[in-house]
Amino acid sequence: MTQHFPSVRFALGALAVAGLLATGAVQAQAQEPVQPLPAVKTIEPAKIELGKKLFFDPRLSKSGFISCNSCHNLSMGGSDNLKTSIGDRWQKGPINSPTVLNSSLNLAQFWDGRAKDLQEQAGGPIANPGEMAFTHALAVDLLRSIPQYVAEFKKVFGHDKLSIEEVTSAIAAFEETLTTPNARFDQWLKGDKKAIDAQELRGYQLFKNAGCVACHNGPNLGGSSFQRMGVVEPYKTANPAEGRFAVTGKDADRFNFKVPTLRNVELTYPYFHDGAADTLAQAVDTMGRLQLGRTFSDAENADIVAFLKTLTGEQPQITLPILPPSSDKTKRPQPFE
Amino acid sequence: MTQHFPSVRFALGALAVAGLLATGAVQAQAQEPVQPLPAVKTIEPAKIELGKKLFFDPRLSKSGFISCNSCHNLSMGGSDNLKTSIGDRWQKGPINSPTVLNSSLNLAQFWDGRAKDLQEQAGGPIANPGEMAFTHALAVDLLRSIPQYVAEFKKVFGHDKLSIEEVTSAIAAFEETLTTPNARFDQWLKGDKKAIDAQELRGYQLFKNAGCVACHNGPNLGGSSFQRMGVVEPYKTANPAEGRFAVTGKDADRFNFKVPTLRNVELTYPYFHDGAADTLAQAVDTMGRLQLGRTFSDAENADIVAFLKTLTGEQPQITLPILPPSSDKTKRPQPFE
Repeated sequence: MTQHFPSVRFALGALAVAGLLATGAVQAQAQEPVQPLPAVKTIEPAKIELGKKLFFDPRLSKSGFISCNSCHNLSMGGSDNLKTSIGDRWQKGPINSPTVLNSSLNLAQFWDGRAKDLQEQAGGPIANPGEMAFTHALAVDLLRSIPQYVAEFKKVFGHDKLSIEEVTSAIAAFEETLTTPNARFDQWLKGDKKAIDAQELRGYQLFKNAGCVACHNGPNLGGSSFQRMGVVEPYKTANPAEGRFAVTGKDADRFNFKVPTLRNVELTYPYFHDGAADTLAQAVDTMGRLQLGRTFSDAENADIVAFLKTLTGEQPQITLPILPPSSDKTKRPQPFE
Repeated sequence: MTQHFPSVRFALGALAVAGLLATGAVQAQAQEPVQPLPAVKTIEPAKIELGKKLFFDPRLSKSGFISCNSCHNLSMGGSDNLKTSIGDRWQKGPINSPTVLNSSLNLAQFWDGRAKDLQEQAGGPIANPGEMAFTHALAVDLLRSIPQYVAEFKKVFGHDKLSIEEVTSAIAAFEETLTTPNARFDQWLKGDKKAIDAQELRGYQLFKNAGCVACHNGPNLGGSSFQRMGVVEPYKTANPAEGRFAVTGKDADRFNFKVPTLRNVELTYPYFHDGAADTLAQAVDTMGRLQLGRTFSDAENADIVAFLKTLTGEQPQITLPILPPSSDKTKRPQPFE
């Protein structure tokens, strides 16, 4: 953003005031367990653009119908708003699709953290028989058959190899740009005390005092630890997922899941790893009882929900990519075979 | 586009030259059976923006997973690049998804022309049990439960009714903007003789001389008539579609289908109502033999294919809409029930 000051003298005065305000804001932030989102780095625009094409390309699935964007829909908070996702041949997915927004801030990827970063995550669904049902080898063969993709990979990576590592690296580079800055709560954190209203502030104070913030903290209000689902009371669900235990095999990790981010939580319903909570009011009630041993009154619940809705940031402005057409040599999708 | 001229005198001179060129171009066009795309009218931006949201909103399907864009994907030439489309619960669709690009120029919609215009068409898939599997009543109830949609409909239509007619009218208004101007062939038609090369020009001349242009003419190179699939030889297919006969009940209309546009045909593979032809070479070969009784040589086929690829226009630049979130009252999608 460029600001035009009418005179140098005014500009200097304004800068001095801005400096004082910034110092105050930094002090205020230092006392809060939540921080504004860091700025996104976009140092590799060609790689990001390639990654965007791949993110939207359903040819990375066996059927030619499912892309990354199918379950991490950037029109819908980077999620699919379904309890559990729909995979190849309409298979019912085992778990709720986590948002891709701000996901680079998470300590690991997937609910059980089995992928260490976005690049490792990106390879998972492509080859998962219940999701995109393709293989890495077929995905690479497909891309190599499309001249415009071959040229773009060469431009980005400097050689003709075109490997799955480059595919997932490009997708991850695009996903790293999917941040949602400048939520009203971030504006408040940075010193604009009018950015949230009295109810929303009450909700934030209760969110801190009741202990929600013990897990939902940091710039992503979550994503920084694995925690047990059902601390005070066990969580009742028909969903068989056992969380972190599936990765470590340690009994202590059973039902430990990555704490989800609360950024844009207004957009990423339904909630929990099984998608059992349709509304924020339900989610807040369940979390209060099971994790904190506390039953929020209707008014308290409403205050926390009001606060949570201040976490909706500016959504990424995505120009829909135009995908390079298949060539005569490209293997055709097989949705029904 | 704004042009800045260094002086008024030069501007007047340039305009005079431009006028002469334009006259010449109009004369050239008048002799061709194909015309450039007309300019698109965007006189209702709020309605178009609302229609764009609806076009991308999977909540207009029972599953919450299928939107208009699923089968008319604006990253993929406004089609899904599948032989026949995938519907609710992965049902195999009966027919190839026609492109939505430039579709407002067609004399009617669907392969059999059963919808008179885009608005009538838009209501079809929403309520088709094999496609989006919703009902118009449920779609309207859903939209009425979402405050931001209610406000947008009121802003666009001036009242609180929110009917299916308004839903389909907004979708159609968006679709009318989906034109693809300035293809290389249009540039050639407008007088830029270097816009296509010698092979592409040979292809166009053969396209005219062999008779392809008898059906694929006008600004959309098709879309202006119903014609029999299999004139000289019958078309062999397992697909049971009977074309226009399904609408009129007249024997003479059996296997008559709307002639598809050839604009962006490089992007809208596979071809024919059953999607049986994977490549342009196959499609040209089949059309030559069955419709014209002519077997094109490999060189002739390649010339026509080269010409067809000059019909790829500027694709619509779509900023992905951010969909208004469901409210607590919104009925949740039912993909597996």
